Amino acid sequence: MEIIYGVNPVKEAIKAGRRRIFEIMVSREQYEDIASMVRGMPINALSRKELDRIVGERNHQGVIAKVSPYRYTALEDLIDLAVVVLLDSVEDPQNLGSIIRTANALAGAGIVIPEDRSASITPAVVKASAGATEHARIARVTNLRQAAKELKKCGFWLVGLEPAANDPLEETPRFDKLALVLGGEDTGIRPVMEKELDLLCHIPMQGAFNSLNVAQSAAIALYELITRRK
Amino acid sequence: MEIIYGVNPVKEAIKAGRRRIFEIMVSREQYEDIASMVRGMPINALSRKELDRIVGERNHQGVIAKVSPYRYTALEDLIDLAVVVLLDSVEDPQNLGSIIRTANALAGAGIVIPEDRSASITPAVVKASAGATEHARIARVTNLRQAAKELKKCGFWLVGLEPAANDPLEETPRFDKLALVLGGEDTGIRPVMEKELDLLCHIPMQGAFNSLNVAQSAAIALYELITRRK
Repeated sequence: MEIIYGVNPVKEAIKAGRRRIFEIMVSREQYEDIASMVRGMPINALSRKELDRIVGERNHQGVIAKVSPYRYTALEDLIDLAVVVLLDSVEDPQNLGSIIRTANALAGAGIVIPEDRSASITPAVVKASAGATEHARIARVTNLRQAAKELKKCGFWLVGLEPAANDPLEETPRFDKLALVLGGEDTGIRPVMEKELDLLCHIPMQGAFNSLNVAQSAAIALYELITRRK
Repeated sequence: MEIIYGVNPVKEAIKAGRRRIFEIMVSREQYEDIASMVRGMPINALSRKELDRIVGERNHQGVIAKVSPYRYTALEDLIDLAVVVLLDSVEDPQNLGSIIRTANALAGAGIVIPEDRSASITPAVVKASAGATEHARIARVTNLRQAAKELKKCGFWLVGLEPAANDPLEETPRFDKLALVLGGEDTGIRPVMEKELDLLCHIPMQGAFNSLNVAQSAAIALYELITRRK
């Protein structure tokens, strides 16, 4: 069992219906809004102080829920999608949540994360995704390189994003099935993953301060490769 | 005086040279890296515990600095830029920092924030921007609508981003001088600001979960309107 918190995370968990919800706890101000959504789930109004005690310092916005653990998707269940995002060592929960939200909103994309060197789908990630985790198909694999190989066999083209790559993002051709590979905050894409890529590209920048956060890079790449190519 | 923290924020403050730096305090592991950058500034090695005591729970990465307060730019000093981003009620420090970083990296853009209903350039924003605040020109104005009017007089086209707008982002024409207007997390662009816009557009989305974070929207819009139009 785990405790998720925040208005959107709990609402999206209810809507998605993929987790078992054991109990919902809300502040008095939030009661009406949330109660109107739930059918047959226990919901209790608590004081802010009581809510604070349950989730600690985290920004719960007066809404928390006891739910079953996050259920990952099998890699095989991503292959019917047009877009998959592979995250090689993204360790910051804020970045992971942000990428899941954007990938889902822009492209209905599936996500693949490795078991090691990566944040997993914790309640903090659910919060950072504004609840998009509850709708997204997310596979957690033991070997990301192996997952990349399998996606290639199923017709995906593997495109990696790296600041030092030669080709600008906008010159990347349109692919029917795209697997976008992004590297972690400090390490970038590891050499062992880079070997699997069909293409490496960069986002052109003109500022004095030459770096984008991985979540911003993901948003731009998905916009260019998916939204614009429709 | 204020205390900024984190490796990039302190390094960028040193490089930019726009703040007076009274003292730099680092963990033993960080001493060499930071000491090699500073000339004539007092730098002291402290234990992690001592650093924790100074900045509290915040993620200082072993580097903190006592500096003069953030110095905003006058609005007049933005008008020679090609791109300015106006933030109407962006209250989350993480989002504000993220937008400053992206706007600077992608477009060398100036930023305009209002005094009310907005985060200001606090140390948390400096951290979230990875130090981009130290290079960016950021104006803080009493009246954002007035600032918009002045930018228009100086040849800027005001383009707003709103999920409900009719025109897709990619159909927006190229402008020599662009002022991108973004609304806050909850409120969007206020009607009073909307009146000043030359154009409203939206980012097309295809996911079930239909919302982008304001910082992601900013990244995509700047990429489309600036990076691609070069």
